[in-house]
Amino acid sequence: MPLDEFSLIETFFRRPTAPAAGVLAGIGDDCALLDGGAAGVLAVTTDTLVADIHFPARASAFDIGQRALRVNLSDLAAMAAVPRWFLLALTLPAADEDWLRAFSAGLFAVADAHGCALVGGDTTRGPLAVTITALGAVPANVALRRSGASAGDQVFVTGALGGAAAALADMTQTGACSAADTTLNARYWYPEPRLREGVALRGIASAAIDISDGLVADLGHVARASGVAAELELEKLPLCGAALARFGSDQTRDWALGGGDDYELCFTVPTSRLAALETAVRAGRLRALPVGRLVSGTGVHARDGAGRSLALTRTGYRHF
Amino acid sequence: MPLDEFSLIETFFRRPTAPAAGVLAGIGDDCALLDGGAAGVLAVTTDTLVADIHFPARASAFDIGQRALRVNLSDLAAMAAVPRWFLLALTLPAADEDWLRAFSAGLFAVADAHGCALVGGDTTRGPLAVTITALGAVPANVALRRSGASAGDQVFVTGALGGAAAALADMTQTGACSAADTTLNARYWYPEPRLREGVALRGIASAAIDISDGLVADLGHVARASGVAAELELEKLPLCGAALARFGSDQTRDWALGGGDDYELCFTVPTSRLAALETAVRAGRLRALPVGRLVSGTGVHARDGAGRSLALTRTGYRHF
Repeated sequence: MPLDEFSLIETFFRRPTAPAAGVLAGIGDDCALLDGGAAGVLAVTTDTLVADIHFPARASAFDIGQRALRVNLSDLAAMAAVPRWFLLALTLPAADEDWLRAFSAGLFAVADAHGCALVGGDTTRGPLAVTITALGAVPANVALRRSGASAGDQVFVTGALGGAAAALADMTQTGACSAADTTLNARYWYPEPRLREGVALRGIASAAIDISDGLVADLGHVARASGVAAELELEKLPLCGAALARFGSDQTRDWALGGGDDYELCFTVPTSRLAALETAVRAGRLRALPVGRLVSGTGVHARDGAGRSLALTRTGYRHF
Repeated sequence: MPLDEFSLIETFFRRPTAPAAGVLAGIGDDCALLDGGAAGVLAVTTDTLVADIHFPARASAFDIGQRALRVNLSDLAAMAAVPRWFLLALTLPAADEDWLRAFSAGLFAVADAHGCALVGGDTTRGPLAVTITALGAVPANVALRRSGASAGDQVFVTGALGGAAAALADMTQTGACSAADTTLNARYWYPEPRLREGVALRGIASAAIDISDGLVADLGHVARASGVAAELELEKLPLCGAALARFGSDQTRDWALGGGDDYELCFTVPTSRLAALETAVRAGRLRALPVGRLVSGTGVHARDGAGRSLALTRTGYRHF
C-alpha cells in the first residue's frame, strides 16, 4: 500500500504516549515547541531538500543554498517565531569549490537578512541533498499552532498563490533551471519567509501554517488539527498575476489549490479579532487576503461564486 | 583540488565574524552550545548517515534506525550534555511499511533508553539517508569543549578501539550486512553513546571528543582547537579483543588509529585533576584508558615502547 507522508508519520513516528518533558508541541505542527524555561519557548524545525525531487540539481548553487534556508525559516514564520540559529547537514556527490562558494554565499545572504546564525552541521558524501534545522524563539503562549482554530473563524493568506507551481511548470517545459519570467522565477526560487507577518499575527490568529504543499493540503492540516472543516471561496482565491498572464485562470487556480511551494502563510482569525487584524493590515504589518472560513465538520470544501459546492480534485503535492 | 570535510567547513561555512547572539560555541565542536538563559545551555548537533556510504543500504532497518540515533547521541556525550529531544529528517526511495516499522522500532528503542523524545521531522523521497538533529541540556560552564586542553594534560579513551572498523572489514569481505562475530558486530552496529561518561567528566576533563573518524583524526581536532600537539604511546593503545583475535595486532592498531566508528570518548585531563578522575573510575562512573599526553607543538605524533618517534600513516577516515 502506498503511503503518503502524512499517514507515514502518523503510523510510524507519532506515539500515543504522554508528551515528553519540556515538549509543548511535538510531531504534527510546523515546528516543535520546546520549553526553554525563563528564556521562553524554542521553535525547532527540520526540512530536507533532495536534488531533482525538490529542486533541479543543475540549478545555481547560490539559488539552492538561499532557497533551502528560506523554506526552513518559513516553518518558523508559521509558528510566529523569530529565527535565531540553524544547522546545516549537506550531502554532496563531490566537494566542488565553486559550487560550495556559491551555495554558502546564498545561504548566508538569507541568514544575515534574518539574523539567523549557522551554528553547526555535517557534510557527507552522497546524492545531493540539503537538510536544515532551524531554531527560533517565541514567547510562551503566543506561538501559532495548527490546532487553535474554531468553526466560525475566517481564513486568510498573506499573498497571491500559484506562482511557484507556474515557475516549476515553466522550468519543466523549457528544461531550464530558472523561469524566463523573473516574477514567476522569484516565486519559486526566492519565496519570502513571512516572519514579520507571523509575529504580527501573535494574539490575532487562532492558527497558522505555511503553504508548502498547496492550500487545500495545508489548510486541511489546520482543519484536521483543530477538529473543524474549511470552506474555500474559489472566486476569492488570490492568484499570482504572472501565472494568470502566462497560464490562464483555470490552471493557476489549480496550482493555488494544490501546487505548493508558495510559502505564504495561511491563517485563521476569530471574528472577535478581525478588528485587530484590520489594524495590523492598515499599519502595513501584513497582507490578509480572505479565502474562506471554518465550519463544523471535516475536510476542505470549495464553493463557487454562486455558493455551489465544488469537488476539490487537486489535493496538494504528496511526498509519497 | 579535493577537499576533506574539515577544510571544506573551514573554507566555506566558518566566518570570521563575532559570535552571534546566544552562541557559546558554533561550528567546530561536537555540538553547538546555545544559550538558553536561565534554562541553561542547549547542546545541538546534526549528523547525516547516507546509505552505502555510512552503512550498508541492505542492512536491517531496525539496526539502521537505532544506530543513527546512537551516533548522534555520541556527539551530545562528547559535550557532557544530557539528551532531551531529537528531530528526524528521513529520505526514502519508497514508503515500505515493513522497513518503516522496523526502522522506527530501532529508533525508539534507543530514544527510550536515553529519555530522548522525537519532537519533529521531515520525510522526503530520494536516495536513502537519515539526518538526525539531537538537542541536549548541559549546565553553563561544564560543557566539554575541544578547545580546553593544555600541554601537560594526559589523554584517555573510554574503551578499546578498532572493533567497529574490524566489523566493517568483515562485512566487506563477506558481503553480509552484519559481522559474524557478535562482539565485533556490536562494535559497529550498537555503539554505546558514552553519555554517562560525559557527565562524569564534567569538572574533570579539560577537553573531549567522540571518536567517529579514528583516534588520530579526532585527537587531532582537540590538539588543533587547543593549540597543542598530542603524543600517543602506541604500546598503550587499548585494542578491541575480538578484532585482535581475528585480524592481529598490526591491523587492529591501524584501525584504532584511523578506522573510526568506535564512538568511544577521547578526553584530556590536567594532572591536577587526575585524582578526581581516579575517584570517578573507582566509583564505576567510567573507564579511563591512558593513550598519551599533550605537549607543546602541533599535530598528533606517536611513540613506540622504546620511546622512538613513529610516523603516523593512518590519519583517519576523511569524508571527501
